[in-house]
Amino acid sequence: MRSNKAFTTRLHVGIDGGGSKTACLVGDEEGNVLACEEGESSNVKSRPREQVEETLLSLIRGTVARAGGAIEDIGSVTLGLAGGHRPADKQRMTDFLKPYLPPSASIQVHNDAETALAAGTWGQAGIVLIAGTGSIAHGYLPERDCGVRVGGWGYLLGDEGSGYDIGRQALMAVTRHADGIDEAAMFSEAVLRHLSIRDPQQLVDRFYESGNARKSIAQLARLVIDMAAQGDETAARIVQQAAQDLSRLAVTARRKMEEAAGGDLKEIPLVLAGGLFGSEFFTEQFMGTIRSRMSGSAVHTLRHPPVIGAYVLGLIQSDVQLAESTIHSILRTWGDTERKIES
Amino acid sequence: MRSNKAFTTRLHVGIDGGGSKTACLVGDEEGNVLACEEGESSNVKSRPREQVEETLLSLIRGTVARAGGAIEDIGSVTLGLAGGHRPADKQRMTDFLKPYLPPSASIQVHNDAETALAAGTWGQAGIVLIAGTGSIAHGYLPERDCGVRVGGWGYLLGDEGSGYDIGRQALMAVTRHADGIDEAAMFSEAVLRHLSIRDPQQLVDRFYESGNARKSIAQLARLVIDMAAQGDETAARIVQQAAQDLSRLAVTARRKMEEAAGGDLKEIPLVLAGGLFGSEFFTEQFMGTIRSRMSGSAVHTLRHPPVIGAYVLGLIQSDVQLAESTIHSILRTWGDTERKIES
Repeated sequence: MRSNKAFTTRLHVGIDGGGSKTACLVGDEEGNVLACEEGESSNVKSRPREQVEETLLSLIRGTVARAGGAIEDIGSVTLGLAGGHRPADKQRMTDFLKPYLPPSASIQVHNDAETALAAGTWGQAGIVLIAGTGSIAHGYLPERDCGVRVGGWGYLLGDEGSGYDIGRQALMAVTRHADGIDEAAMFSEAVLRHLSIRDPQQLVDRFYESGNARKSIAQLARLVIDMAAQGDETAARIVQQAAQDLSRLAVTARRKMEEAAGGDLKEIPLVLAGGLFGSEFFTEQFMGTIRSRMSGSAVHTLRHPPVIGAYVLGLIQSDVQLAESTIHSILRTWGDTERKIES
Repeated sequence: MRSNKAFTTRLHVGIDGGGSKTACLVGDEEGNVLACEEGESSNVKSRPREQVEETLLSLIRGTVARAGGAIEDIGSVTLGLAGGHRPADKQRMTDFLKPYLPPSASIQVHNDAETALAAGTWGQAGIVLIAGTGSIAHGYLPERDCGVRVGGWGYLLGDEGSGYDIGRQALMAVTRHADGIDEAAMFSEAVLRHLSIRDPQQLVDRFYESGNARKSIAQLARLVIDMAAQGDETAARIVQQAAQDLSRLAVTARRKMEEAAGGDLKEIPLVLAGGLFGSEFFTEQFMGTIRSRMSGSAVHTLRHPPVIGAYVLGLIQSDVQLAESTIHSILRTWGDTERKIES
């Protein structure tokens, strides 16, 4: 830990609030990442709002202290939160944090897809496609301050191509096989073995009495992708459908941005984020479906976490020039921070 | 209410335990329905098991008393319950009821689809296809005591073609339209108007913060079917898919029964039950998909409630001959009972 000192630059706090944990990063205006800490989930759909606010406040205090700074040094706080695109949610979070921060500090509340995109484009124009438990595409054009969202409706209303969607398709293939409707003997056996279940009827107890069925269903996506990679037809069909559904989200996001910009955006980069793109096989399948539909776009997988995007948006908001050297500094010092967390 | 008297025949108690309410019917061995009462849900997935048991016991006591009888007059109790096909559930319910009933009384626990089928075939061979909030096909061959189930896996693992499935497809059509992925402007507008929602984003609050999202989603099926009847293309596509998925359940059930019987069962009747078949338009759509795939089968919609099937199974179990006159007696006295309940 750094010793307390008067900072010559202001501190910028970036927060990525996920469904299972919240990351908080503190850096300075030169792109030096000084500390990063993790706390509990900040999803107000799964935890009481007061607890989420308490988690966020204590994370900010803890991470700023670990960075060797004080609350008075904070120049900006930028949050990427599920639901953070909704005006009421933005306002409530801003009102909550304001009294605890210096009067000059700016507070920005974004949707978590917006900060993920900023981590992939350093705040420049682009589209992020996130495929984890859920799915969403988010595009942003800074020159018009225009953002578009496609998907992100959650497991009841959407989330096509997500881990949850893949897992649910897998379970439905198993029940259809058990019913004698479809052939999928090997696939079905592999899924049941993976779940340590003998009789498909046990699926009912497993998933309806589980407190977090959505997460356990999404966790099956890894198995399905592995089986598709090994050539299983049922798995391949499910993965192919997911890749196509995800492509549709990204393609629609670009079309909507082009409509907003009134012109061609063929060169806009596409950033892939979320657990599914952690699989090379899945990413290849996706690339196969997207190439013809989105030619021109550079596609790359997000290699560093969305919390960096929140920090970057905080710097931009504070009129810090994001020079090449600043970006290099962020990546280098983030690497150091990660090693510190791991050790 | 009948005055208390010594019954010359034993009383038979039939119970249909649904997700929202439980019906209990008491009749004699001649097919005279003497009383029918309703109580709370007996679904152990949504209520504590002890409460469900208490509900059932108090319903049996109340309905037998209303029929003018006493517990000692009971010859059989037959229950149709969600999950009632599972050995552990059967055993637990039997063990619970036994001490409260005369030692000679038989207790049968069936799945609710089995009692619905018995209401449609008077305990003879047939297939019932139920399309309500969920979906299931159940077939039974008395000469082999062979029952087959297809579907009935619930909203996470199956329920293709159910009200829930139709409602969810409708909501996904609305979110895809809001995203600019699909055309469905009129359909989308109608669904949002029906829900008194202006901005599709409000769907998120409505359905994720609702205590019973599954039921509210299933309730949209009625609107979708009405719109399909009026020629809306999106609605028609959803309804057509549901009709095909339901056909597949019934066709697969017949194939499995033929495999078990080792021969042709083309003449086996198909009974349609559940809320969706309350719509003539939906039933017509379904008939259009099933006719070519299940030629030979007489198809009819269940016109009286599954609780009658539980009573019928109790009579058969007690070796009562189900003559034409008994069936007529059941239908006539049930009609009288219904009028009593309504007045």
